[in-house]
Amino acid sequence: MSNAHDPRTPVTVLGLGAMGSALAGAFVGAGHPTTVWNRTQGKAEDLVARGAVRADTVAEAVAASPLVIVCVVDYAAAHEILEPAGSRLSGRVLVNLTSDTPERARSAAAWAAGHGIDYLDGSVMVPTTDVGQPGATLLYSGSRQAFETYEETLKVLGGRAAYLGDDHAMAAVYDLALLAFFYSAMAGLVHAFALAGAESVPAEEFVPFTGAIADILPPLAAGMAQDLDRGVLRGDQDNIVMEAAGMAHIIEASVDRGINTDVLAAVKGLADRTIAAGHGKAGFLSIIEEMRKPSAKG
Amino acid sequence: MSNAHDPRTPVTVLGLGAMGSALAGAFVGAGHPTTVWNRTQGKAEDLVARGAVRADTVAEAVAASPLVIVCVVDYAAAHEILEPAGSRLSGRVLVNLTSDTPERARSAAAWAAGHGIDYLDGSVMVPTTDVGQPGATLLYSGSRQAFETYEETLKVLGGRAAYLGDDHAMAAVYDLALLAFFYSAMAGLVHAFALAGAESVPAEEFVPFTGAIADILPPLAAGMAQDLDRGVLRGDQDNIVMEAAGMAHIIEASVDRGINTDVLAAVKGLADRTIAAGHGKAGFLSIIEEMRKPSAKG
Repeated sequence: MSNAHDPRTPVTVLGLGAMGSALAGAFVGAGHPTTVWNRTQGKAEDLVARGAVRADTVAEAVAASPLVIVCVVDYAAAHEILEPAGSRLSGRVLVNLTSDTPERARSAAAWAAGHGIDYLDGSVMVPTTDVGQPGATLLYSGSRQAFETYEETLKVLGGRAAYLGDDHAMAAVYDLALLAFFYSAMAGLVHAFALAGAESVPAEEFVPFTGAIADILPPLAAGMAQDLDRGVLRGDQDNIVMEAAGMAHIIEASVDRGINTDVLAAVKGLADRTIAAGHGKAGFLSIIEEMRKPSAKG
Repeated sequence: MSNAHDPRTPVTVLGLGAMGSALAGAFVGAGHPTTVWNRTQGKAEDLVARGAVRADTVAEAVAASPLVIVCVVDYAAAHEILEPAGSRLSGRVLVNLTSDTPERARSAAAWAAGHGIDYLDGSVMVPTTDVGQPGATLLYSGSRQAFETYEETLKVLGGRAAYLGDDHAMAAVYDLALLAFFYSAMAGLVHAFALAGAESVPAEEFVPFTGAIADILPPLAAGMAQDLDRGVLRGDQDNIVMEAAGMAHIIEASVDRGINTDVLAAVKGLADRTIAAGHGKAGFLSIIEEMRKPSAKG
C-alpha cells in the first residue's frame, strides 16, 4: 500500500523543542516544504535559515500542509495548541509525537474523532541526534489509512516506522514500557560509573565493558518473552537467590563508598519478596509477579 | 607473552554450581585434563561422564593441577574450602571466579600472598550458557605473571579475557559496577513486560522493540564516559526535567495498572533531587552527583 517517497508532500511541525526541531530538521533535510511553528519565535531561526517557513499562528501553520506533526512537552500542552485549530485540522492527518500516557492518547483520539481529524499517535524511540537515521525507530498507532498514506514521508523521521494497530493508545503503551527499561538501564549505567569512579577507574577505560552487558540484554529479553507467553518462570540457568546475593554485594560495596543504593535496593526488594513467596529457584523473570503488585507507598 | 593454547594443561575446578559446572564443562570440551570437586558429589556426574576426574577431597583436587579455579557462592564459602588447602596451593596459580565485594577480594589476595599462592581474582560477565564462547567476557586482576602464563587456557572460558591490572580488587569493582547496570536494566525489562502485558500485548510481539533501546545504550554510555572524564554534564541533547516528566508518565500509567513503581520512583527521586539542586538543564548523566551521595535510609 505504501508509495515511493515524495519529497513534494508539505509538512507542518508544531513545537520546536529539542525533539520538534530535530523532526522539522529531518523534513527540511529530505527536501519537504516544511512549515514550522513554536510558541516562542526564536527557536525557528536555524530551521528557517535551512529553508523552513515560519508560521505566525497555529492556524496558518496547519493550513499549509495536509500532514501536521505535533511534538511538545505533554498532551495538555498539545491540546492547548490544537484545540483552537480543531476545525482547520478537519480532513487533515495529525500525527502526535508528544510522549504521554495511554489514557491521554485515547482522550486525544476521541477529541480528534470529534473534529473529523485523521489521527495517528506516535512515539520517537531514539535521542534527537538519531532522528532521521534509517535505523531510528518510531512507533505509530491509530488511523491505518493515515499511516499507509504517509508511511514513506514518516520514514524521513526514522527508517524503522512501526505501525502497532488501530488502538491509538498502543504507541504510548510501547513508549512507556520501553522508557521504563531505558531509564532503569540508564540509572544502572550511572550507578556503574559511580562505583568505578570511586576506585579512580577512568570512565572511558571502564565503558567498553558495559557493551558486554548491553549485548546480552536482547537475547535474555527474547528468552524472557518466550517464557512469559508460555507462562513458564524457569530457573535452569539462573536463580533469584544467587542474584539477590549479587545485589547485596553491590549494595554493600556502594554503601562502603557512600554511593546511593535506592534503585538497586528497590530491585532487591522485588527479588526478596519473590524469594519470600517461595520462588527462590526460579530465574530473574520471576520478579514479574511482584512487579504486578502495586507499590506499598502507592 | 601469551603462548598458543595447550590443551594438555591440567586444570582443577572447585565448586560445581551452575557457573562452576559451566566452567569445568568448557575445559573438558577443550580437551584439558580436568579435575573437579564439589561439596556434594552428585553434581560431578555429568562432567565425569564427559571425561572429568572427580576428586574426593579439595587437597586431592588441588594436587592434580598447576591451575586451580574456584567458583562458589561467595568468598566466605571460598575461604572455607581453600583455607585447609593453603599449603598445597603454594606455588600454584589460584583463580577465584567467585563474585563478591572488592574488599573481600583484597582480603583473599592477602591470604593467598601469605601462603605463596600466585593469585588472580576474576569475574564471569556472561550467563552460564555463554561460558566458553569466543565473545564471552571474563575479567581478571592481580598476578600479571599468572594471567600471562595461563591467558590462553583462561580463554577457553571466554575469548574476551581482560586483564585489569595488579590490584586484585579491580575485577570485583568492574564486576559489581557492571552488575549494577545489569540488574537495573533487567528490572526495567521486567517493568516493560508488565506494562505491555497489562494491555494484553504478547511479550514476543513487544520484545523486538526492546532491542532498539539496547542498541542506543552503548553509544550513550560512551558519550557519558567522555563527559565524565572531562567533568562536563551536558544537556544539549536531553535534559533531566523532560526526562523526569517522562518518568512521571510511566509511574502514572503503572499505578493505574496496579504495577509496582519502586525502581522507577527511585530513579525519579535521583532526577528530582538533581533538578532541585539547580541542574535541570543538564542531561541524564547529571544524576551522578546525587548517585554519589549515600541513601537517606542507609
